[in-house]
Amino acid sequence: VSQDFDQGERRTRILDAAEVCFVRNGFHRTTMQDVAAECGMSAGNLYRYFPSKDAIVQGLTERDRRELAEDFASFDGADDFMTTFARLGRKHFEEDSRDRSILCLQIWAEATRNPDFGRIASEFEADVVARLTRLLQDARAAGQIAPSADASAIAILICTLANGLFVRRAIVPDFDAAREIPPVMNLIGALVRGAVSLTPEAVCPEPVS
Amino acid sequence: VSQDFDQGERRTRILDAAEVCFVRNGFHRTTMQDVAAECGMSAGNLYRYFPSKDAIVQGLTERDRRELAEDFASFDGADDFMTTFARLGRKHFEEDSRDRSILCLQIWAEATRNPDFGRIASEFEADVVARLTRLLQDARAAGQIAPSADASAIAILICTLANGLFVRRAIVPDFDAAREIPPVMNLIGALVRGAVSLTPEAVCPEPVS
Repeated sequence: VSQDFDQGERRTRILDAAEVCFVRNGFHRTTMQDVAAECGMSAGNLYRYFPSKDAIVQGLTERDRRELAEDFASFDGADDFMTTFARLGRKHFEEDSRDRSILCLQIWAEATRNPDFGRIASEFEADVVARLTRLLQDARAAGQIAPSADASAIAILICTLANGLFVRRAIVPDFDAAREIPPVMNLIGALVRGAVSLTPEAVCPEPVS
Repeated sequence: VSQDFDQGERRTRILDAAEVCFVRNGFHRTTMQDVAAECGMSAGNLYRYFPSKDAIVQGLTERDRRELAEDFASFDGADDFMTTFARLGRKHFEEDSRDRSILCLQIWAEATRNPDFGRIASEFEADVVARLTRLLQDARAAGQIAPSADASAIAILICTLANGLFVRRAIVPDFDAAREIPPVMNLIGALVRGAVSLTPEAVCPEPVS
């Protein structure tokens, strides 16, 4: 048991070190030797835990998915969807470091041409959409959000907004979370209150005159 | 004049070839030799037009900014903001190829660690936000959108949604523009009609009960 704990702790340290290296130098310029050096370990020892950079990315993604599952579990028994959601939003976009956004962009960029990364990224995205959809369906069934709220369409819009925030956070030098998050939260609030029709018929609304 | 035209045409062909290479192999794996081969030109000749890969990316971005300026010019004299906007949205997210989204991700990822790319990406983003803000201010002054519409906040939300769509388009294998664009357009329509309050006070709305 103690050795398992050490192994888990060692893997955590390696993943943390890899994040630092990928953010600092980019995925392509980072070598296994860089990761080993960053966590004060020999390259030979590192290979016992992860056989390749791809395996490290897989490990990082699995960790992210576990954290995501924990985040979603925090909704269990919560009686106010938007309060819990706003708390998670603050955690992901205000408290989390900018490095997380940079890492996302690195993985997304690699996903467009490496099939393994592509599968990891698309499964992660589909997982978030599916979890959000179920969450919204449950909240709707519990009367916490509008009966007319389209759970699937809103889940996709939330992911679109979240991905867009990750991009802006990574590339806008003076990104101000305190300024940009509240309008996004208000928009999501309006969606779950059913204040915005999402049916295709309303694509070109009448101009206000 | 004829030689200038040839030069411009040659630059266009090089930029097209570079896009193909960057999308196919990623920015890092693409060499100047690859770009030269893709457009049937010697490497020596290529260097007469672009001294480096960075210069090619700069060229691609300048071209994008010119196209963007033309897109925004199409609003001049238009009497229905949302109709023109929806047409541009269709152009950028339905008609444009997925390759454009992949190229964006490549440039954003590189922008997080190469200062030159960082400047290019952040200036481009700031340019879009500024143009959208002015456009919304003009539409508001002309009575085409709600007097209460917050031009700057809406411009940032539109960019957030657009960036998020680019990400989903590049990484979701079964991305369906016909399904995902209309809700985004409806959301923007609701914003410009003033149907969604964006003030921070409303971050945690009362649950619907």
